[in-house]
Amino acid sequence: MMDPFTDEYFMKKALQEAAMAFDKGEIPVGALVVAHNTIIARGHNLTEMLNDVTAHAEMQAITAAANYLGGKYLKDCTLYVTLEPCQMCAGALYWSQISKIVFGASDLQRGFKKMGSQLHPKTTVVGGVLAEEAADLMQRFFAARRK
Amino acid sequence: MMDPFTDEYFMKKALQEAAMAFDKGEIPVGALVVAHNTIIARGHNLTEMLNDVTAHAEMQAITAAANYLGGKYLKDCTLYVTLEPCQMCAGALYWSQISKIVFGASDLQRGFKKMGSQLHPKTTVVGGVLAEEAADLMQRFFAARRK
Repeated sequence: MMDPFTDEYFMKKALQEAAMAFDKGEIPVGALVVAHNTIIARGHNLTEMLNDVTAHAEMQAITAAANYLGGKYLKDCTLYVTLEPCQMCAGALYWSQISKIVFGASDLQRGFKKMGSQLHPKTTVVGGVLAEEAADLMQRFFAARRK
Repeated sequence: MMDPFTDEYFMKKALQEAAMAFDKGEIPVGALVVAHNTIIARGHNLTEMLNDVTAHAEMQAITAAANYLGGKYLKDCTLYVTLEPCQMCAGALYWSQISKIVFGASDLQRGFKKMGSQLHPKTTVVGGVLAEEAADLMQRFFAARRK
């Protein structure tokens, strides 16, 4: 039997979070934390609504996941996020010792790879999952803002 | 007349925040945000109490300062922090476009300099202010934990 819980399956859910940010006029980035095939935390970018540069989707999902687990380490968890994390979020993920990060579109300007941020040695990374859908949402957002 | 509002003056206040973290059994790091010689936000490390790796002193001070100012950019502000920021906090400070960062003790293992994090081009940095006091507090904390 095929495993329904693929990276694409969870990334679609993260894209739904990103769409919620889009609808609020926020840069459309969504994130989930998954443990044992269960979504334990969700977040979407709220930097405008909260007037807070730290309110990225990943940060909220990390805090919510730790709250759910009752411990601050996300050792058996996977973060799904529609856009490559920035250095702040990569730094938070470093501290969380998360097992796996799956991201959608690359951020060639402010992504953690370009910025040279370090992840925890125990963390594996997969990029490019449903990248076109994530990038398309971003492009539509910025095109609408320019009008 | 001598300016009473020196970096040492505000760092002493940040050390008081660090001492509050110490008393709660948290790694003793304290932070302030200052605008026009007025302390507009304070924070101390609460990662254990909140079960949250993102609850560093700087992150709380950044969020509180933006809340006070009603805007997410800290362009005319200075962050005082007793320990060199990590890559997460450096990343948050990058987004905030803060004018100046003053830190106490260097963190040679996990500090943003060692980790290669990038600050905003508009941000100036001063390190080593009351560094011995900050380092002493850290050493006493870890010595007590080893007992």
